[in-house]
This record gives sequence, structure tokens and C-alpha cells, in this order.
Amino acid sequence: MRQRQTLIRLFTEADLRADRPVALTAAQSHYLTRVMRRGAGDSLLLFNGRDGEWRASLASVGKRAMAAWPAEQTRPQPPAAGPWLVFGLLKKGPSELIVEKATELGAARISPVRTARTAAERVKDARLTAHAVEAAEQCERLDLPRIAPLRPLDAVLAAWPTERRLLVAAERAAAPPLATRLLREPSPTSHPDGLLIGPEGGFDDWELDRLRELPFCSLVSLGPRILRAETAAIAALACWQSLAPAGAFDARQQVE
Amino acid sequence: MRQRQTLIRLFTEADLRADRPVALTAAQSHYLTRVMRRGAGDSLLLFNGRDGEWRASLASVGKRAMAAWPAEQTRPQPPAAGPWLVFGLLKKGPSELIVEKATELGAARISPVRTARTAAERVKDARLTAHAVEAAEQCERLDLPRIAPLRPLDAVLAAWPTERRLLVAAERAAAPPLATRLLREPSPTSHPDGLLIGPEGGFDDWELDRLRELPFCSLVSLGPRILRAETAAIAALACWQSLAPAGAFDARQQVE
Repeated sequence: MRQRQTLIRLFTEADLRADRPVALTAAQSHYLTRVMRRGAGDSLLLFNGRDGEWRASLASVGKRAMAAWPAEQTRPQPPAAGPWLVFGLLKKGPSELIVEKATELGAARISPVRTARTAAERVKDARLTAHAVEAAEQCERLDLPRIAPLRPLDAVLAAWPTERRLLVAAERAAAPPLATRLLREPSPTSHPDGLLIGPEGGFDDWELDRLRELPFCSLVSLGPRILRAETAAIAALACWQSLAPAGAFDARQQVE
Repeated sequence: MRQRQTLIRLFTEADLRADRPVALTAAQSHYLTRVMRRGAGDSLLLFNGRDGEWRASLASVGKRAMAAWPAEQTRPQPPAAGPWLVFGLLKKGPSELIVEKATELGAARISPVRTARTAAERVKDARLTAHAVEAAEQCERLDLPRIAPLRPLDAVLAAWPTERRLLVAAERAAAPPLATRLLREPSPTSHPDGLLIGPEGGFDDWELDRLRELPFCSLVSLGPRILRAETAAIAALACWQSLAPAGAFDARQQVE
């Protein structure tokens, strides 16, 4: 729920330092001048995932190109502290919805994977990144989630850093609710958890058996109903955000 | 994440009793025969929000019309126990997304409202209901959320049953996190909470002031980022589902 009248926020790849001008892309220049009717001298906010958020002034540098001059840092760069999301690739619409909502809900890394039952075959990384950029600009995030290329689930599991817990959403399997797991067993390390969501159709039984055997995996339930895969991803991230790591700490403090 | 090979589930308005035939609609008959290639003798599941879930057998009753004969109840009707969702009307796509996901996440009632900053003017109740029916069929819910007609927020607040707590998602206002509120202050009554989500642009300051004064309202935060309105609605319901009422009880038990 954005307030009106907030400054336009844009993501840039460029370094942000006082009075070091930033060239805006053609698409950004078009958006600012044609869509939003901004011009030289107007203010905007810039972030690049490294240097915090900066207020900058617009300047024209040619007929259609705009640049921005960073004036002052409005927020410092916070440490990246979000969970990693691994999800069975879905069709274009739901996959893009997951990336958009996962960005809003603070995921630090998003990995689409191929599993036994994934039906979707391909994904355009550039489109997923574009959705993440737009979501980050709107939700006032100061970094982008890292979007990994599509890989087989096995490859992601083989490369998984074992000190990072991976919570696996398992429907129809006996597993404690995600909230219970987060409150009862906070991650033993300071690494935010990973969350693994299957594709439409869920995991195959042998996949669940394999996941159960991996020491860093814990199966969890997302409630009594059978959620669509994209709903499961959003619900798991929302629950994680509200309970871990700082959330859970606060909540436990107040319950104890 | 649905399993393959599960029976088709359909919502019907008809009563469900053993061997009392149920006429299926033209759309349902078309879906079963043309899209899913089912025919006489095949099994399906029916629910109507009152009589639980029934396994039924398909029968042809004319060239294109199908009927179903309930054979046995597969699940009893559970009591309706979900939260009420009140949301500032959005454009068609995000409003329909909210209804779909709120149905999956167990909302018992969904009320679109007009607020100071809502931009959308109209909503087709029948379309929202169609999204709720499809979501309920897919997520194995046994009832439909009640979808109220669009009304001014004031009218919904004036008619609000005061024994039911209304948790108001307020961005940029000092308010405790929703999870903290749910864990620390469970609803004093047995009525599931209401959740109120503003439109794009949030609530006006005077609206928040009014909401603060209402004895049944409590302001809550949904986290550090500024969520799109539809993300806020989904995240609030996911958090509520995982922590209240049974969830919170379990979680508290295990933390204490």
C-alpha cells in the first residue's frame, strides 16, 4: 500500500556516490519524461543493491536521454538477510507472480528448478529479473534478489550450503506447520532459511523420501488446504518473514 | 501443489444426499465431457458448503447434459472458521487474485470496500464468485467464502459485529507486527478475526485516525517493506492462517 506523492524510485547498476552522475537507461528516461512527466531538476531516488538509497536530481543529456546526480544518501545499505526461495518452475504467469511477490516479501535469492513433475520447460531470466526490479522499486527494497538460472532440483541440492536449513513444503505428508517449526526450532545458524516449494502436482514420493534423508532439509506443512504452487510460495515467505529471524525472536520474547 | 490423479471436485448449489441425483450445469457438463473426457460411470467429488464432500457417479441425461449420483460422503462438513477479509477495491486483476488466494487461504467472508483512496469503481460480483468457486474446487475446501457486494468502508465498519476483532494493516504507522499481535493477544472471543487491507495508496491519515478510535480495531504492521495491496492481503491471510486460532495455540504451547 504505497502512499501517494512518494518519490519515484529506480534501480541502477551504476555506483552511487555524491555528485557522480548516473546515466539512466532509455527505458528509464522514457518512463520518467513521457509516462511520469518529470524533467530536469526534479528529484528521484536511486538504489543499486550496494550503496544504499540516494536522492538524486534529474538532468537532460540529449534529446531523450536523462542522467541523475546523486545528492545525498537517504538510507544506508542494510545487510542482505532474506530467505532463499527454491521453486518448481511453473508457467510464465505464476512464475512471474512468484518472483514479484518473493521480491516484495524479502527473498534474497530465487532459484527456479526442474523436478519430477515440473511441466514448464523454459524461463526467460531477463523477464524474471525485470519483474524483480519493478517489485524492488515499488516496495522500497534496497537490493534485488539474486535470480538463479533454471537448474535440476538435484543440482541445487548438491550445491546447497549445508549450514543453511531448507524447509520443504510438503502437502499430504505428515509434517509440522511451518509456523511451529520456525517458533520451536529457530535456525541453528545465522543463515536465513531456504524454502522449497514443489511444482503443480507436488513432489513425487521418491523425491520426498530423498529430501527427508538430507540432513539440512526439514519437511513442513502450509496448512489444511491444498494450495496452488504460487500461493504456497507466497504464503511460506509471508509466514517466514513474520516469524524469522527477527520476527520469531520478538514473538518468542513476548510470549515467554 | 495438487497430486495428479485426484478426482475432479465440483461445487454445486444442490443438496447432497445418497442417491439424490444432482443436475450439473452446462458449463460443468462441458468441462467434464469435452475438456476432461469423462463420461457415464466415472467418479467425481461434489461439495455445496453444507453437506460435506460426496463421491458421486456421472450419468448422461441428454445429448450434452450430465448428472451426478452421490454415493457416499467422503468428508463431513467442518464448521466455518476462517477470518473475514475486508479490502480496498483494486483493479480487476488484483481484486480477482485476492479472491482466489483468500479462498485458498481459508477466508470465510470477503468484502471489497470503497475508501478515500480507492481508484477502482466497480466490480462484477459474479466474476469474483467464479474465482472463489474455482479456487475452492482446486484447494479441497468444502465451502465458499461469502463475497459481499462493494460497499463504503464506513458502512462495513458501522455494521461490524463488535465482538469480532478487526486487524488493520497500516504501513508507515507505528504498529506491532501482525505475528506479534496474534501470538501476544489472541482474540478474546471465539470469533475469527477480520483483516482490513487498504487500497493502492493506503489509508488516508484521517481514516487511520478513525480506525484507531474504534474499539474493535487494532493496527498491525506487515513487515519492513511497502507491499502492494494484493500482496498485503495474501501475506496477512497466510500469517493469520499459520498463527490463529489453532496455529497460535499450538505455537504458544510449544514455545512455552
